[in-house]
Amino acid sequence: MQVGIIMGSTSDWPTMKLAADMLDRFGIAYETRVVSAHRTPQLLAEYASSAASRGLKVIIAGAGGAAHLPGMAAAFTSLPVLGVPVQSKALKGIDSLLSIVQMPKGVAVGTLAIGEAGAANAGLLAAQILATSDAALMQQIDAFRAAQTESVLSQPDPAQVPL
Amino acid sequence: MQVGIIMGSTSDWPTMKLAADMLDRFGIAYETRVVSAHRTPQLLAEYASSAASRGLKVIIAGAGGAAHLPGMAAAFTSLPVLGVPVQSKALKGIDSLLSIVQMPKGVAVGTLAIGEAGAANAGLLAAQILATSDAALMQQIDAFRAAQTESVLSQPDPAQVPL
Amino acid sequence: MQVGIIMGSTSDWPTMKLAADMLDRFGIAYETRVVSAHRTPQLLAEYASSAASRGLKVIIAGAGGAAHLPGMAAAFTSLPVLGVPVQSKALKGIDSLLSIVQMPKGVAVGTLAIGEAGAANAGLLAAQILATSDAALMQQIDAFRAAQTESVLSQPDPAQVPL
Amino acid sequence: MQVGIIMGSTSDWPTMKLAADMLDRFGIAYETRVVSAHRTPQLLAEYASSAASRGLKVIIAGAGGAAHLPGMAAAFTSLPVLGVPVQSKALKGIDSLLSIVQMPKGVAVGTLAIGEAGAANAGLLAAQILATSDAALMQQIDAFRAAQTESVLSQPDPAQVPL
Amino acid sequence: MQVGIIMGSTSDWPTMKLAADMLDRFGIAYETRVVSAHRTPQLLAEYASSAASRGLKVIIAGAGGAAHLPGMAAAFTSLPVLGVPVQSKALKGIDSLLSIVQMPKGVAVGTLAIGEAGAANAGLLAAQILATSDAALMQQIDAFRAAQTESVLSQPDPAQVPL
Amino acid sequence: MQVGIIMGSTSDWPTMKLAADMLDRFGIAYETRVVSAHRTPQLLAEYASSAASRGLKVIIAGAGGAAHLPGMAAAFTSLPVLGVPVQSKALKGIDSLLSIVQMPKGVAVGTLAIGEAGAANAGLLAAQILATSDAALMQQIDAFRAAQTESVLSQPDPAQVPL
Amino acid sequence: MQVGIIMGSTSDWPTMKLAADMLDRFGIAYETRVVSAHRTPQLLAEYASSAASRGLKVIIAGAGGAAHLPGMAAAFTSLPVLGVPVQSKALKGIDSLLSIVQMPKGVAVGTLAIGEAGAANAGLLAAQILATSDAALMQQIDAFRAAQTESVLSQPDPAQVPL
Amino acid sequence: MQVGIIMGSTSDWPTMKLAADMLDRFGIAYETRVVSAHRTPQLLAEYASSAASRGLKVIIAGAGGAAHLPGMAAAFTSLPVLGVPVQSKALKGIDSLLSIVQMPKGVAVGTLAIGEAGAANAGLLAAQILATSDAALMQQIDAFRAAQTESVLSQPDPAQVPL
Repeated sequence: MQVGIIMGSTSDWPTMKLAADMLDRFGIAYETRVVSAHRTPQLLAEYASSAASRGLKVIIAGAGGAAHLPGMAAAFTSLPVLGVPVQSKALKGIDSLLSIVQMPKGVAVGTLAIGEAGAANAGLLAAQILATSDAALMQQIDAFRAAQTESVLSQPDPAQVPL
Repeated sequence: MQVGIIMGSTSDWPTMKLAADMLDRFGIAYETRVVSAHRTPQLLAEYASSAASRGLKVIIAGAGGAAHLPGMAAAFTSLPVLGVPVQSKALKGIDSLLSIVQMPKGVAVGTLAIGEAGAANAGLLAAQILATSDAALMQQIDAFRAAQTESVLSQPDPAQVPL
Repeated sequence: MQVGIIMGSTSDWPTMKLAADMLDRFGIAYETRVVSAHRTPQLLAEYASSAASRGLKVIIAGAGGAAHLPGMAAAFTSLPVLGVPVQSKALKGIDSLLSIVQMPKGVAVGTLAIGEAGAANAGLLAAQILATSDAALMQQIDAFRAAQTESVLSQPDPAQVPL
Repeated sequence: MQVGIIMGSTSDWPTMKLAADMLDRFGIAYETRVVSAHRTPQLLAEYASSAASRGLKVIIAGAGGAAHLPGMAAAFTSLPVLGVPVQSKALKGIDSLLSIVQMPKGVAVGTLAIGEAGAANAGLLAAQILATSDAALMQQIDAFRAAQTESVLSQPDPAQVPL
Repeated sequence: MQVGIIMGSTSDWPTMKLAADMLDRFGIAYETRVVSAHRTPQLLAEYASSAASRGLKVIIAGAGGAAHLPGMAAAFTSLPVLGVPVQSKALKGIDSLLSIVQMPKGVAVGTLAIGEAGAANAGLLAAQILATSDAALMQQIDAFRAAQTESVLSQPDPAQVPL
Repeated sequence: MQVGIIMGSTSDWPTMKLAADMLDRFGIAYETRVVSAHRTPQLLAEYASSAASRGLKVIIAGAGGAAHLPGMAAAFTSLPVLGVPVQSKALKGIDSLLSIVQMPKGVAVGTLAIGEAGAANAGLLAAQILATSDAALMQQIDAFRAAQTESVLSQPDPAQVPL
Repeated sequence: MQVGIIMGSTSDWPTMKLAADMLDRFGIAYETRVVSAHRTPQLLAEYASSAASRGLKVIIAGAGGAAHLPGMAAAFTSLPVLGVPVQSKALKGIDSLLSIVQMPKGVAVGTLAIGEAGAANAGLLAAQILATSDAALMQQIDAFRAAQTESVLSQPDPAQVPL
Repeated sequence: MQVGIIMGSTSDWPTMKLAADMLDRFGIAYETRVVSAHRTPQLLAEYASSAASRGLKVIIAGAGGAAHLPGMAAAFTSLPVLGVPVQSKALKGIDSLLSIVQMPKGVAVGTLAIGEAGAANAGLLAAQILATSDAALMQQIDAFRAAQTESVLSQPDPAQVPL
């Protein structure tokens, strides 16, 4: 396992699945687990503290509302932690975003966009991080990016497409 | 000690001192300590886990930005936890407020106003909580509230006061 | 009755019911009543002024929009008052939250999250407050929290659950 | 006295003075008083309940933060109530504004802008209200408005004025 | 006609109808008209400039988005103008609210809540304004308020009502 | 005169001067005038209605708070109108921005950034608009842009510059 | 082709189509193309750099979220660039708006409202820009505006229309 | 060079210097350069496109307002890009934050907090990323984190420190 994907609740999985899908695309091994900062703080401490020794290289953490999971995971490990603000019901994720991104000096969380795009990009950024020491993976990412570019370039003129 | 006042950084003390001042007014014993959710997560776990057995009745926690201290303290204890959003530099405490108040179902933080008023009121609410089983303290609080009311009632007509 | 649950309108009941449900879980006696700060201000004054003498220990107040009920209840009693910002139609409860939490120094409201999670947590925090002088209740809360933790720990790997 | 100007604290007077100044300009008699919704709720109830019988025609209420004064004054009287959101320290008055303006159906507060402009305009709108049954006052307001227009029209080209 | 109800578009009518309904309740004569600040600025100028001479006493103006109608109506008349922020599609009316309420010193708009509650309250506040010189109308409003209070007081315990 | 620069108050001139400075840089003739949507609505109507016939090609309008000047200018002319949100005291210009940019379909304002950068860019965009039919001016703008690029390219390594 | 309409994704077309519809109304030739700042940055550079030499006079760019397309198009051309903030899922377009409008001094984007109204107005403003050197087009716009005014003036009293 | 630190303007250097300071602490070689997305888009394209081949492993990009630099750098490279929202004048960096973090699916920016804390943490996260393939560096980071923890643990009781 190179990447651990954790989330505060199974209700976050429809969002966080996009991180897993992106890692699948690059053949990167990962594990997924529900770890709640507030309901299982000991599990969080153990999970994050032991992550490096278990061989993980990157942790992706998604949570909503007062989203403490990414920051608290970062508090227990020196591995890079990527945070995904899950869209919340009332405030649409602005609470999740600020809770994750506004970390104090000395403990960092690389934060992605609110919701599914952010989860997918957390998977992509994890791959990019692993690729800093894996030339073959970097080539895969270059190819993914090139294919993505090609996909946009080959789109028809939108005015020709029926709505 | 009946109340523990914790804060993420000594820079939060000028704000959190108002909680201590309020407790002093009621003769309530308290302790103050810098406990950082992100830089001393083990201390936080130990502090909050042992708080009840050490005789504390209420925890007041103040923090700014991605303010995880109150919620994480609540994750480790069944004591009532009161949260004070410290005013942050860029976003003026709206990040602190949302990070503290938007807790998920099952782990609660009673949140006060941003900044000094909130810290003072955290001290007051802690006293009110203790007074639910301490009639003499409740009388003290009634007297404080009555004096506060009197203080407003005795104010001169503002139009008569030079600016 | 140990807890009074008040709300500005019957339309707040689907939210505030979660506070009642939480108190039910701990066998705490409570009463529920529609009290509108704006439409029944005299009732609010009487209700809050007499709450302590009627034996209540904690008041939970929920309201939306220009949500004055929690703060005004606090103005008439020295009992701890917990405020629940009910999600409003246009602004999704950010108006309710700010109206409740930003109280001036000297009159405190312990504020919970917007909506159902906040209502449930108001019930939980009320129980925690009562438990500061009720060891058996504190044990119940510890057990509730332990069961909640266990419930998360026993969840399957989300990647194994069909969406 | 035709207008009552109330405010939550003497610290609101530098803002609320602009309401008084505007009424002075039209020779409208008014009274000023510190009335705190949270610290003197009984005074508020008495003040607002008796306002009509004491001959007041309009109430202007200014407050900051969780600004309940205007809405609670309106709860106790059928007179028109005008609300002035006083600029708050952390959130700059957006909390004051939402606390005042988002009143539920059935109890209204006519809300003005945050801070000094809003206070001045509360005085002006009170005058306009009184003028609906006072043709001489309406002429005064027309003259004030015409002079204000003239004052703008007579301004020099800004490019000719040294910064 | 004592009150003019204007709105920027027929799409605002479902909201603004609540102002009309409230005036109907008090038997106050009013007119309704679509007047767009941006699409019919001359009509707006004529409408507002002539309002007083046509016998109107109060103008209620509702608009959404960059909602200039209330402020521009106020620019052309010395009558009291009440503004209703209509809920907008993307920003849910916070744009409408700020566009209406943040008027500069010297031209006032009494602003109500976003959406239907605000429209109803604009009708109510218009009635309250007219009642400052109409004792019979003030009695009607007192009765309306008393009935509203009675309606809340007679509500059953919400816990007894099936959801 | 090809461009008219209008603003709601002389207090807006320190901001709006940057629009004038940019036009000066390109040798574009302009006029500056205080025109208040709220205090001089007739002047605004006349100014904007006659702008095209007086030879103006573009109007730049700056205002703060409930900033109606740009939108109302656009209501009276078919010329392109550019809006500059002037930074307001309490809300820092977010009110100005939303009041200007959220125009309804059918009357457009091209809105620039809040404050001085926005004013300078309004001047630049006005020049770009004029340059769509003035090749020499387009060359001037190309040269300005190239010089601007060069200026960034020639900057020293920031780490070599004393703070 | 006089106008280029570009957008970050085909999912923006239902919004951006309103810009095209407006240009159609005036018989202005335009092209439409998906150009993604992030996925096809070279295409963006080429598109914008060559726009003037290909005869385009105005570029309309729509994007959502971290909406860089309008600003980056402006970075590569001296033509006027108009930006349309497309409504985003979580934050409803406030992210799109701020990403587009808050450009630094020296590179300007004329920004329109969030969503469909903004797209339509981008088409209208593009026409207004072209009309600064095309008297016949200006007459067309005058006629469109007059018809729009007429359409509002001929609307029935809203109170007569069934909801 | 392992890390490239780029920023939109020299005025961002006082903020971005904290990223450099953090890299210095770990002995990580880096380069610093002013690269403006809007004023030097070709430089940005060249800088980011060639970064990997020049041996860079991570790019840190800081910018304020409509902050396009981090996202556009990410558009031109498969290296991990970390974004620092620089505090802006009017909106205090919420515009910078949303412009950087809300990237669409397929191009990722790991975003840090607004201002100096975010810049320092960008340096730290870059080090953590490099440490995923550099055990000695990971030990350095562990030591830094341990020292940071120790520094908090050794702080005196805040109540003993004179304000």
